Amino acid sequence: MNERKICTIGVDFGSLSARAVVVDTDSGAILGEAAAEYPHGILSGNLPDGTPLEPDCFLQDPEDYTAALERIVPQAVKAAGDVDIIGLAVDFTASTMVPVDEQFRPLCIDPAFAARPHAWCKLWKHHADAPEARLLNEICAEQKRPYPGWYGGTISQECLLPKVIEVFHKDPEVFAKTAAFVEAGDYVTSLLAGTPCFSLSIAAGKNFWCKDGYPDGDFYAAIAPELRNLPKDKFMDRYPEAQRGYPGTCVGHLCRSWAEKLGLPEGLALSAAQMDAYAALPAVGAQVGTALLVVGTSTGILVPGERRVDVKGVTACLPDTFYPGIWGYASGQCSVGDTFQWFVDNCVPEEERKKAEAAGKNLHSYLTDEAARLAPGETGLLALDWFNGNRSPLADPRLSGLILGLNLQTKPAHIYRAFLEATAFGARHILEVHQRAGLPIERIVLSGGIPGKNAFFDQLYADVLGRPVEVSACTQAPALGSAIFAAVAAGRWTLQEAIGKMQCANTRHFTPDITRPYEFLYEAYITMTNTCFGPLKPILDGLYVRRRK
Amino acid sequence: MNERKICTIGVDFGSLSARAVVVDTDSGAILGEAAAEYPHGILSGNLPDGTPLEPDCFLQDPEDYTAALERIVPQAVKAAGDVDIIGLAVDFTASTMVPVDEQFRPLCIDPAFAARPHAWCKLWKHHADAPEARLLNEICAEQKRPYPGWYGGTISQECLLPKVIEVFHKDPEVFAKTAAFVEAGDYVTSLLAGTPCFSLSIAAGKNFWCKDGYPDGDFYAAIAPELRNLPKDKFMDRYPEAQRGYPGTCVGHLCRSWAEKLGLPEGLALSAAQMDAYAALPAVGAQVGTALLVVGTSTGILVPGERRVDVKGVTACLPDTFYPGIWGYASGQCSVGDTFQWFVDNCVPEEERKKAEAAGKNLHSYLTDEAARLAPGETGLLALDWFNGNRSPLADPRLSGLILGLNLQTKPAHIYRAFLEATAFGARHILEVHQRAGLPIERIVLSGGIPGKNAFFDQLYADVLGRPVEVSACTQAPALGSAIFAAVAAGRWTLQEAIGKMQCANTRHFTPDITRPYEFLYEAYITMTNTCFGPLKPILDGLYVRRRK
Repeated sequence: MNERKICTIGVDFGSLSARAVVVDTDSGAILGEAAAEYPHGILSGNLPDGTPLEPDCFLQDPEDYTAALERIVPQAVKAAGDVDIIGLAVDFTASTMVPVDEQFRPLCIDPAFAARPHAWCKLWKHHADAPEARLLNEICAEQKRPYPGWYGGTISQECLLPKVIEVFHKDPEVFAKTAAFVEAGDYVTSLLAGTPCFSLSIAAGKNFWCKDGYPDGDFYAAIAPELRNLPKDKFMDRYPEAQRGYPGTCVGHLCRSWAEKLGLPEGLALSAAQMDAYAALPAVGAQVGTALLVVGTSTGILVPGERRVDVKGVTACLPDTFYPGIWGYASGQCSVGDTFQWFVDNCVPEEERKKAEAAGKNLHSYLTDEAARLAPGETGLLALDWFNGNRSPLADPRLSGLILGLNLQTKPAHIYRAFLEATAFGARHILEVHQRAGLPIERIVLSGGIPGKNAFFDQLYADVLGRPVEVSACTQAPALGSAIFAAVAAGRWTLQEAIGKMQCANTRHFTPDITRPYEFLYEAYITMTNTCFGPLKPILDGLYVRRRK
Repeated sequence: MNERKICTIGVDFGSLSARAVVVDTDSGAILGEAAAEYPHGILSGNLPDGTPLEPDCFLQDPEDYTAALERIVPQAVKAAGDVDIIGLAVDFTASTMVPVDEQFRPLCIDPAFAARPHAWCKLWKHHADAPEARLLNEICAEQKRPYPGWYGGTISQECLLPKVIEVFHKDPEVFAKTAAFVEAGDYVTSLLAGTPCFSLSIAAGKNFWCKDGYPDGDFYAAIAPELRNLPKDKFMDRYPEAQRGYPGTCVGHLCRSWAEKLGLPEGLALSAAQMDAYAALPAVGAQVGTALLVVGTSTGILVPGERRVDVKGVTACLPDTFYPGIWGYASGQCSVGDTFQWFVDNCVPEEERKKAEAAGKNLHSYLTDEAARLAPGETGLLALDWFNGNRSPLADPRLSGLILGLNLQTKPAHIYRAFLEATAFGARHILEVHQRAGLPIERIVLSGGIPGKNAFFDQLYADVLGRPVEVSACTQAPALGSAIFAAVAAGRWTLQEAIGKMQCANTRHFTPDITRPYEFLYEAYITMTNTCFGPLKPILDGLYVRRRK
């Protein structure tokens, strides 16, 4: 017997790179994988042609996505060897917005619009649309709309609509020329299908869609009268014939041209796209009672729940978006790995770099190892991890990073440790808000690009959270999760069957070390949080407003 | 006519280096000058032999002082050419403490004590004696002593006595072996005289002495019964025959051996030493109504006043210590240039260093120039300048530095600017406390190592203070002031005559630029100050206490 393995492909599009995996649908084994960085990375400061960007602009080049697809899918397939591939699914950062023209081509590809910032993709963490997010919150308050409640009490500038309104406000020509503002996950899936198709999970998670459809026209008209029909004009309702569904639903079939480009069978099943963090849930077998922390450039915290409760500051509390029949509580921290990277890029002198080189380590691992030599509190430092605002539980993009306790003996590794600790304190704060709202958390799983690489980091989270944590050995959790959704879309398994057979059960366990007490520091973090979000809020707001001018 | 000029010598001992000037007593012209860094600089971390030091230890090697003297005085005299030298005075950081043996030799020179940290000189900014300072404050409260009132309400760990008690607590053998704990300014003057002699200005300014003498024995006995006679045992009262006086008083004459070493006439007049910051006052002609800011590694703020009022947080409020018949209000900021240097040493990546090199600038001037391109508030940052505690007006060594507003776009020059601004805010805060107490300030003069080098820095101070400032062109103000005191000690002039003839009148004027408003940032600084010293104080204390362990 030499039976060919039946496989699916998951493609995970992150903030800086994309990864593809080819997965055995019987065992969950990853048989082939490949990754590629986006050549243009994140555009901030200026466009590739030098056009300057205003502060808080974070854009991307959509050709980076297709270039990555064409490179990594064939590589992963080749690595997997002689297998049968029956389905494909993508997951993507969200809301990452692609303005497309009548032919579903990204607007920035048109030379006439190449120098127009608003014709480019806006990455999830683009924050220049904060005034538009505030406007939406005001309209919701005025019209007594329920939408802020879906998104933790405040509509975040990370949703799709503020990004769209920003285009309307700042570049009406681009707005007029845009046929549709499409989620990047839908954009890629539609390209592969050769026809528009849409994920209801992303529409619900990032653009006010629910089972009753989009908000009525009075909502959009309050922004500007000409936007009354925005969903039919420029969202998925523009394409009434298009397939839509939750991840695991087949919304299309691989078209001939992309089948040829990727070397895959034409017509294989395409699942509706998932948001990148959510895609990790099935990969680590996260069910009700599990909190999944996906720690990368930012941290997504996902808690599946059996019922609807009010949790302050979650960025989404929506039915069916994680799994059918389950309430999905999504929250997160805006800047985690980004903060560590900012520090390494901007604050580390050559001397430390040389020591890291001499030790054969990259700077992150060198600084983490140096930080690990210290006892909790020994740095004398306390930081707030709000370098890109606070998503949960405060939902305020105007908040900023803080470090306290600086003194003439402070060393780079001390500051690095304070930032590591701050991200753990921020995660604990969010989990406690869930528990206080009545959502049980019986299991904590760390996943993403940062855990599992340095035992100090993983142990720090166990120590700070004060409870055991599991670190998933799956380095490709979102991509594996997408492959699981692809197996469901292809009709190979039900979702529960697919999770059971394909999840990565390989985890490392860390239990809190009681000789490393963080209670003083954590309480200090909470006091600082309450002070900065309370009496000092006008100062943080004032600094933010002046910074932007 | 070829009359030889009649000159005096001033020698200024700072934290890192010493400078000598030879000054024409008729014109104030500096005819010769020389400077030398201390070979061992500031000892922290460990002694030269590797003996580890506890945190907050800042020691010095007394042989660095004599080596500097022997080098720079002959150099300055040689540069001055053929002149008559009639007097010499030194000024010194204070309280910088030298433990000496029966022969007035520094104890650390004795090989038996070379590896004992407490046998070394303790620099003014040594803070490991903070618990001893607290003990003294408790004793004063219990015994209703007036001393905290002399020193701004709190006895600082920068006084002499806490440093002495620290030796008593931590190394009783060194304490027993020490014949006297001598101010470094008195130590050097005594060496030159070949016999002990003392400055009443430093004794009053740093060690509880007043016209009635030292505190009575009950005060010292409260520390430990065996310390009841401490002034007679180990302070200047041990040497009842020794000359003492205020700066401008002749307390000795140059002894033969040092006359030979320095190439000066034996027997020339030696003035009582002055504290380094105070010595700058006559050099810039600072009279009642002037605030002199001596901005260097730290900032000393000196305000001569006609009467006694209560100014919160001044570190000294004493009669006669600036000038006879005048009340001297001294206050300051613990870490100014030190903070800028800490930043350059610990937080600046190679890329910035290369840009500075390419621009032919040192890093401080490169970062200042980059910072100057920004408008007030544009960084979005706000800092507190408490890297070595807050001397005035809060008088609390447990306070620490803070930076707020950090974000992923923050660059090194942004942070550097925030620290520059924070030191200016701190200075304004101190000046406002004086004015609220009823001391008029009609003129502000900047002096010291930092002003006058970069117009942005000087303009920033005018903008933040919101009033005109003068920057003294005298790069050697304390040394010139010492030369003025030397001219008085030598009987050449009265003090008023000497100030009139010898002061440096060459100043640059900066007026506030109303297009650069700092009101929001300054008010935010004050709010942060009140918050960190108010509701957040337990956090700062907790961080400080944990850091020290």
